[in-house]
Amino acid sequence: MTVRVGVIGAGMIGQDHVRRLTEVVHGAEVTAVTDLDAERAATVAAAVGAWAAADGAELIGLSEVDAVLVTSWGPTHAEHVLAAIAAGKPVFCEKPLATTAEDCLRIVEAEIAYGRRLVQVGFMRRYDAGYRELKRVLDAGEIGTPLMVHCAHRNPTVPESYHSEMAAQDTAVHEIDVLRWLLSDEIVSAQVITPRPTAKRFEHLRDPQIMLFETAAGVRIDLEVFVNCQYGYDIQCETVGETGLARLPEPARLAVRSGDATRVAVPQDWKERFGAAFDVEFQEWIDTLAAGGEPTGPSSWDGYAATVISDAAVEALKSGRVVGVTMKDRPAFYAEGAR
Amino acid sequence: MTVRVGVIGAGMIGQDHVRRLTEVVHGAEVTAVTDLDAERAATVAAAVGAWAAADGAELIGLSEVDAVLVTSWGPTHAEHVLAAIAAGKPVFCEKPLATTAEDCLRIVEAEIAYGRRLVQVGFMRRYDAGYRELKRVLDAGEIGTPLMVHCAHRNPTVPESYHSEMAAQDTAVHEIDVLRWLLSDEIVSAQVITPRPTAKRFEHLRDPQIMLFETAAGVRIDLEVFVNCQYGYDIQCETVGETGLARLPEPARLAVRSGDATRVAVPQDWKERFGAAFDVEFQEWIDTLAAGGEPTGPSSWDGYAATVISDAAVEALKSGRVVGVTMKDRPAFYAEGAR
Amino acid sequence: MTVRVGVIGAGMIGQDHVRRLTEVVHGAEVTAVTDLDAERAATVAAAVGAWAAADGAELIGLSEVDAVLVTSWGPTHAEHVLAAIAAGKPVFCEKPLATTAEDCLRIVEAEIAYGRRLVQVGFMRRYDAGYRELKRVLDAGEIGTPLMVHCAHRNPTVPESYHSEMAAQDTAVHEIDVLRWLLSDEIVSAQVITPRPTAKRFEHLRDPQIMLFETAAGVRIDLEVFVNCQYGYDIQCETVGETGLARLPEPARLAVRSGDATRVAVPQDWKERFGAAFDVEFQEWIDTLAAGGEPTGPSSWDGYAATVISDAAVEALKSGRVVGVTMKDRPAFYAEGAR
Amino acid sequence: MTVRVGVIGAGMIGQDHVRRLTEVVHGAEVTAVTDLDAERAATVAAAVGAWAAADGAELIGLSEVDAVLVTSWGPTHAEHVLAAIAAGKPVFCEKPLATTAEDCLRIVEAEIAYGRRLVQVGFMRRYDAGYRELKRVLDAGEIGTPLMVHCAHRNPTVPESYHSEMAAQDTAVHEIDVLRWLLSDEIVSAQVITPRPTAKRFEHLRDPQIMLFETAAGVRIDLEVFVNCQYGYDIQCETVGETGLARLPEPARLAVRSGDATRVAVPQDWKERFGAAFDVEFQEWIDTLAAGGEPTGPSSWDGYAATVISDAAVEALKSGRVVGVTMKDRPAFYAEGAR
Ligand SMILES: [Mg+2]
Ligand SMILES: [Mg+2]
Ligand SMILES: [Mg+2]
Ligand SMILES: [Mg+2]
Repeated sequence: MTVRVGVIGAGMIGQDHVRRLTEVVHGAEVTAVTDLDAERAATVAAAVGAWAAADGAELIGLSEVDAVLVTSWGPTHAEHVLAAIAAGKPVFCEKPLATTAEDCLRIVEAEIAYGRRLVQVGFMRRYDAGYRELKRVLDAGEIGTPLMVHCAHRNPTVPESYHSEMAAQDTAVHEIDVLRWLLSDEIVSAQVITPRPTAKRFEHLRDPQIMLFETAAGVRIDLEVFVNCQYGYDIQCETVGETGLARLPEPARLAVRSGDATRVAVPQDWKERFGAAFDVEFQEWIDTLAAGGEPTGPSSWDGYAATVISDAAVEALKSGRVVGVTMKDRPAFYAEGAR
Repeated sequence: MTVRVGVIGAGMIGQDHVRRLTEVVHGAEVTAVTDLDAERAATVAAAVGAWAAADGAELIGLSEVDAVLVTSWGPTHAEHVLAAIAAGKPVFCEKPLATTAEDCLRIVEAEIAYGRRLVQVGFMRRYDAGYRELKRVLDAGEIGTPLMVHCAHRNPTVPESYHSEMAAQDTAVHEIDVLRWLLSDEIVSAQVITPRPTAKRFEHLRDPQIMLFETAAGVRIDLEVFVNCQYGYDIQCETVGETGLARLPEPARLAVRSGDATRVAVPQDWKERFGAAFDVEFQEWIDTLAAGGEPTGPSSWDGYAATVISDAAVEALKSGRVVGVTMKDRPAFYAEGAR
Repeated sequence: MTVRVGVIGAGMIGQDHVRRLTEVVHGAEVTAVTDLDAERAATVAAAVGAWAAADGAELIGLSEVDAVLVTSWGPTHAEHVLAAIAAGKPVFCEKPLATTAEDCLRIVEAEIAYGRRLVQVGFMRRYDAGYRELKRVLDAGEIGTPLMVHCAHRNPTVPESYHSEMAAQDTAVHEIDVLRWLLSDEIVSAQVITPRPTAKRFEHLRDPQIMLFETAAGVRIDLEVFVNCQYGYDIQCETVGETGLARLPEPARLAVRSGDATRVAVPQDWKERFGAAFDVEFQEWIDTLAAGGEPTGPSSWDGYAATVISDAAVEALKSGRVVGVTMKDRPAFYAEGAR
Repeated sequence: MTVRVGVIGAGMIGQDHVRRLTEVVHGAEVTAVTDLDAERAATVAAAVGAWAAADGAELIGLSEVDAVLVTSWGPTHAEHVLAAIAAGKPVFCEKPLATTAEDCLRIVEAEIAYGRRLVQVGFMRRYDAGYRELKRVLDAGEIGTPLMVHCAHRNPTVPESYHSEMAAQDTAVHEIDVLRWLLSDEIVSAQVITPRPTAKRFEHLRDPQIMLFETAAGVRIDLEVFVNCQYGYDIQCETVGETGLARLPEPARLAVRSGDATRVAVPQDWKERFGAAFDVEFQEWIDTLAAGGEPTGPSSWDGYAATVISDAAVEALKSGRVVGVTMKDRPAFYAEGAR
């Protein structure tokens, strides 16, 4: 059975996922596309033989749409996700689930009210082979009880529109999600330390930042966010446990020995680094829907938690203080193994 | 447009490809399956809603079959491939194309007579990301003119049915194909050196073997084939050029530091090592057919060349001498860039 | 000219340095040894044909002693170093220079009063090939202005006598010294974060600890100190600058592929990891003295700074707060390039 | 007790060893120097307070010379070594022991007649930490019975005076010695394969060459000798056994991530790569002599074997055939563990 997907938001990410659903993933097709820019929607839709819907509401209502993919501008996410829930249709929402904790909670509540998981949030790292092997090693106890995690998230450069709060909200949010999942633990506080800023940035931006998180179990996480590191897109994660440590592998790249050195290329962007993870993420999502199941990936609750924790990190950046994470109690609906 | 594939041979490899075409690859479906074991064919077919054909001839003739996949026992390959050509249907044949050079040539001639490429041979390494990066580096001249290639092909163990000639025919044949492609060069002679055999093998088997190949351009290749190395499936390839060298990367695996060492797992079989390459191989094949194009992967000619060269290696093993490769002139039909 | 060294303290470290001066270093001999345990002093002295002196005072006064090596119990260091300065004899003091900042300052003042450098403190990492290459890269600007340093200092286990304050005083003190030197910068504050403690430790000990330092230039350092990591002695240092990063190499060790993995041994103690650095450290010290020069290694001032900064880290551990480092102004006598 | 060394041959290598004995090694001094160029001998001698002897004969006879170091032009080695044996003085001879097998044998016979080992040949790789760890792993059976060894010996460039036979005699001779020692086995045949030559060489030179050796136990060795590889001095050695493989480590070098890649420098010459091995080699030699023992390093017999085997490789290069190594029976005097 082919899953017919409607795509809300036909920007760069949306177009990439249209391509993925159309050319890579098995068992999916894109049947409708909408975008604030109607002309863009029409072009993208036409290329894959889909319907260009006037807006999200129309698209969600189409009988030719089995499932919804939200890749529009962040502040519009909540509205579309809620509409999809109201229509009882599965919805994959690129991060963030919503730009405020309140909106995330409204989605959580709507989904609980619906009584079945409909929402999956686009945290693709859980689908990366390296992180999955890391989780397997942690869960198997191969390094004992985890005590610390050392991470780095580096981008070569960011555009002028990137501002200091995005370090938590847009960048660190990936580690926030993947670490909660890796550790099966919750983050309870955040602190942000600001090194001497790089001169290779726009004036308004605080870059790099070092974020310090504590989990309920007392694991300490340090995360370097450095979005103008110049040399590449570089993701590091080292988990230290009571009896050993496990380090995320570097991407497999050719070693070339020439000049007077051995040289191994560093990926230059997230598409290069996590392209395969995106493919797996969407294939698993489609497979689950095709089988009539509930999505198994990051949930509304995970989207809520990520927003609350990144808000705490933003407050920590502004205040210079350790900021406690204030989160609702986790509903039984989202308990591990619940669904 | 969905490409409807008929599968001849429902053994382990056949079943894996049925799964791949059904669950992984975009734009394909399996519409017919046949096997010498009719019950097995029926089971595999039923699982994917395909027709269980009585034999290859029936399957190839079905109007519901757009393209044929041959994964039957090697000695039957030629017959099925020739039948598919006769029917004017694209055919993907797992290696070997045929078990004798003569049969390979018959296929080559039939395809030329048909006037359009129909055949692709299943040498999956050309679709591995590492080999592709290696080819890019070579083609870009980043290490200068290639002079030598050092390779190893190691399996943890082989069953008793594996005999000494299979080291060339079944194992080294993958390097033979991928090196011809990497170097855009032809292999012109073979020599086989036999080290002290490992005690961890069946008595009749000569293992390991070191194969030495020379290309038309004078590149020297040494290839260790060691199919009872015990520790894993390990593929090494280092190309040395006039100004540098490039080495195939190790698979990206977690580094775990515990006990008193850092440990990185080695893949244990070819499915683990080349699984992604198989996926890419089939996706590209299906994409090309869906677009109405001729296949772009390893051709009948490549299948012929691989057989002739592995035959030379077998003769070299038996004789202990350097054996020249006697190959027909490459038809213009298969010239690089010809199609 | 052979430099005749008198050794105060014939414990494990003292004996190792006696061996080093006697068997490894060129141009040195040990002519006197003393120890609180007179019998031990006699045994060690006899083995190398040296005089067993009654105490430090007698040893320092011997005409057969050109230079003094202090490897006694930490709290006695200051007394011996001051006595050596009073005698105008060069003195190499294992860390710490003194156990209190006040005593360190007394040494600094005595040395300034003497008018010439006599003291070198035993921070051996400055003599490790990896750290030296790292300094060269930093000084050459190959990674731009440094912004952050990520470090780890791990020991397999520690004895019961090791207490929480020693994490700063005995363990982190090596990073404190080497980072001041690497960065040509001063540490101005310390914070200590305490992850969930490992269960594999004595009850009284807080282990691991994460120390956060800030330098005058705004560089942020995070240092994991984990002295019961179980698996080995593991020293990590990654410096991140405006245009790149440089990482201390792993020790060169054989890669052994067997079982189902590639395995690289981790050093098990500091002697294995820094043995060569100790040899270089002593050879350079002896060479300088033989040439009539002032020592060029870590100075009294460096010993003072290391003590003040590790005191701040201890206070940070106890208080849970960020603790500023209160240090005297650096005397011109110890300015970089001054001597 | 200081060992007083007389040095015959004050060229680049001789001067480097004079420095090593004078500044690095413990327990040695250089008391006499001679050279065909008397002025050069005088300068080198004066710098270390040694006597400039008129020739080798005079130097060997001096009562101030306890041991002789021969670093003169290869063809003169035999004469000096024989003279040292005649004088009953220990002699360290840089490779080759002699330029002909006959001269090597004369030395072997003279030493046996003397009744005690006096001669050590300068094959420094046996003192490299990596090769020593490799030998330990092999001897401990960690990879099972050895079956194959894959080696490479690459230099960035060689001067015009380097000719094709030197690939075996000057370059491969290091692997020939170290492999005999690693494997505790004897090389019995040689074959040389000549890839397409690099264009980056002088016309008269055959470069690269691939040498194939077989041992008495049936181990097969392939050795790439490539002395104009452009990018560095690169030594590779991978030993494959019945249950695993062990690979010589790369030198520990900083990883620098900048531009768009991670870069690790490659050593540029043998002094950089094996400097520490030379230091250990000389320290052990001096220590043994100081203790009144016989040298334990590569013997006259090893020097003879290396010459016979490299002669076979030269003949193999010229003839294009597999050439058997014709070696005398190993005298009991040189049996493993004999002395
Ligand atoms: Mg995402
Ligand atoms: Mg295949
Ligand atoms: Mg020290
Ligand atoms: Mg040598």
